[in-house]
Amino acid sequence: MKRTEYPPAIRDLIVQLRQMPGVGPRSAERIALWIVQARGVQPEAIATAIAETRAAIRPCRQCGFFTTAELCEICSDDSRAQELLCVVEQPTDILPLEKTSAFRGRYHSLGGRISPLDRVAPEDLRIDALIARVEREAPNEIIFALAADVEGEATTHYLVDLLKKFPVQLTRIAHGLPAGGGLESADELTLSRALSGRTKL
Amino acid sequence: MKRTEYPPAIRDLIVQLRQMPGVGPRSAERIALWIVQARGVQPEAIATAIAETRAAIRPCRQCGFFTTAELCEICSDDSRAQELLCVVEQPTDILPLEKTSAFRGRYHSLGGRISPLDRVAPEDLRIDALIARVEREAPNEIIFALAADVEGEATTHYLVDLLKKFPVQLTRIAHGLPAGGGLESADELTLSRALSGRTKL
Repeated sequence: MKRTEYPPAIRDLIVQLRQMPGVGPRSAERIALWIVQARGVQPEAIATAIAETRAAIRPCRQCGFFTTAELCEICSDDSRAQELLCVVEQPTDILPLEKTSAFRGRYHSLGGRISPLDRVAPEDLRIDALIARVEREAPNEIIFALAADVEGEATTHYLVDLLKKFPVQLTRIAHGLPAGGGLESADELTLSRALSGRTKL
Repeated sequence: MKRTEYPPAIRDLIVQLRQMPGVGPRSAERIALWIVQARGVQPEAIATAIAETRAAIRPCRQCGFFTTAELCEICSDDSRAQELLCVVEQPTDILPLEKTSAFRGRYHSLGGRISPLDRVAPEDLRIDALIARVEREAPNEIIFALAADVEGEATTHYLVDLLKKFPVQLTRIAHGLPAGGGLESADELTLSRALSGRTKL
């Protein structure tokens, strides 16, 4: 006896939706059935928004953040301190830093980090563009804000080696206890970094 | 100071994605950033699948299940018992019943249930089509498989009143203890229904 299933169009849609991050088989089915049954034009609007956004958004020529123009909102903002440059892994790392309101300089997204396991070599990253920017913009300080893990650290050190010949201060954001985190929930490495990074009171 | 945000195209996409069931602000942002950054053509494929599925899928003329043809897979299966008809609220209720392999008849989806609060009246449901089917197909038994709540019950009783003039046995699926459910986790109503619906051993 053949088992009844959804028509192929719905099953294909479920397969497609499962590619989205955080969407498992159950939610893909739920979304697909909503798409099939919705009375308004919302599903069509979603399809259009996906296609249009894919076509419109590109990386900022200078820093790699998302934009529909040549330069992003941040790079084309003349009130931004050009002498302060923050290096991040991904363009998605920029908004979290912006939300702190603690930084008013500019950014440079590498597009990833050096990772032999994932076959990401230095030449796969926007490192030449970073060197060119440092030469052209001559910033006073470059803040490295990469992930606090082995590959983030390795990438930071690789870049520090490349950049130390320039007359620029190289700094890294602090590693330590996260806000609200007690000592009992911190792992050994976090605690040892918090200790060695202690500041005077 | 103007707060930096994603370009309008991405913000609009996030708003659109939030309309999907189970997708909150955080997952909508995560999906949108994946859409923007994906290297392959998966996002375009998703947009196409949404639009094509919306255009292709329609309700089966007879039972209301999803199909791309006039009649769905179940209604066009001649090996199905025509003398057994199962009435459900939604087309999405059909596959869960199919998965049990305990029913080999046909279905009739009402497209909802009578609900004065949601302004759903009997004439908004596929009740005329049900009566016409009963007259035409003359089933031996109609099994009501609506939700075990006030509105599901009320809709079942409304239909029983309409259909009792036909020479057909009217039954309802059992209400009682769910599989794996202990008595301590069952609510009063479930238990009282389980008691009154007890069967001989």
